[in-house]
Amino acid sequence: METMRIIEVNHGIFDLNDQVAAQVRALNHEKHRHMINIMASPGAGKTTLLMKTIEALKGTMRIAVMEADIDASVDAEKMQAAGVAAVQVHTGGECAMDAEMTLQALRAWDSGDVDLLFLENVGNLVCPAETDTGADDRVVLLSVPEGDDKPLKYPLMFEVADLVLITKTDTQAYFTFDAERVIKNIRMRNDHAKILFLSAKTGEGMEAWIRWICERMA
Amino acid sequence: METMRIIEVNHGIFDLNDQVAAQVRALNHEKHRHMINIMASPGAGKTTLLMKTIEALKGTMRIAVMEADIDASVDAEKMQAAGVAAVQVHTGGECAMDAEMTLQALRAWDSGDVDLLFLENVGNLVCPAETDTGADDRVVLLSVPEGDDKPLKYPLMFEVADLVLITKTDTQAYFTFDAERVIKNIRMRNDHAKILFLSAKTGEGMEAWIRWICERMA
Repeated sequence: METMRIIEVNHGIFDLNDQVAAQVRALNHEKHRHMINIMASPGAGKTTLLMKTIEALKGTMRIAVMEADIDASVDAEKMQAAGVAAVQVHTGGECAMDAEMTLQALRAWDSGDVDLLFLENVGNLVCPAETDTGADDRVVLLSVPEGDDKPLKYPLMFEVADLVLITKTDTQAYFTFDAERVIKNIRMRNDHAKILFLSAKTGEGMEAWIRWICERMA
Repeated sequence: METMRIIEVNHGIFDLNDQVAAQVRALNHEKHRHMINIMASPGAGKTTLLMKTIEALKGTMRIAVMEADIDASVDAEKMQAAGVAAVQVHTGGECAMDAEMTLQALRAWDSGDVDLLFLENVGNLVCPAETDTGADDRVVLLSVPEGDDKPLKYPLMFEVADLVLITKTDTQAYFTFDAERVIKNIRMRNDHAKILFLSAKTGEGMEAWIRWICERMA
């Protein structure tokens, strides 16, 4: 297990964000790594999904995880324990990563050669949707306990998603969550995003998610 | 059932927020109403808690609910159906209500005479903690499915809370959530907030929450 790094980053100037996001993309392209921005509410299952995804893909490619949090470093420690390069980024109170913060972190962090880089964004259904980090794909998780009405209340997040993952499907019997309704609500905001249902806990639906990652990297 | 009102509000200037929050407090004081700001992640159970709280208190006092969302008005419709005055505030993309928005909404809305006013803030564990709305109390909900580590990751929210409600306790058998650990994690940030456990679904723990409201209003 590597030693934990914690990187404190500074919020970039909003207007320049698109330019810096392009720099992040160019840097990732140069390094031949594909970067996926994982966004969701706190507790939607981002960390557990990443742990299981690493388990499934670890033998086939080099993976690294950038953990963005306001404080604490519990998630980066978990990722390192799972055997991948991980870095903890502290956003200094900011409710999301922006491109400048991402670029600063990428430059400060020697992750070694990596094929697939996950950014686990700050748990938040609002701010992370507003800022392009320079990632190649944006994945939004919505967990069954949160409810099927969330795409109505947090429209931008579902609008910007390339993929929506409905997580914790193993708890569906316990909560009032209508699969058809959530699809309808997502489609009101986004007619092209792929929508997948999965439970990282039971493994149900995980193959389709893994297949999606591999297709995007191809 | 009253006709639904939707109020579009504008973000106030941050530096002036404390002054405007004092104006909100003065206005509520003048109208003899107690205002509680309810904050949590999306899907933590704010709306369900409010519905059950209205059910318990409706005969004993006049209640109104201000629903703050980025978009949609599903929650205000639910509150009106429950028989209380409700207004929907659209924050125009902002991830939380501030004092100016609250004041604008209070002035634009004729709620009639009210003893207890709930503000259901935008679902978010970051931004609403940063801004005083002028409410008398700040209540934070953390649901069992979200996990007991959230006070470590969203420290400010737990720091500013007067009361932390651990919700959806009926699902505790299904999730890995340690009651002692969550208390310890909250206490790292806040040594004075009251901490209560409840399930709005089964009603377990609701009396202590209702009692807390009545004590604060006294």
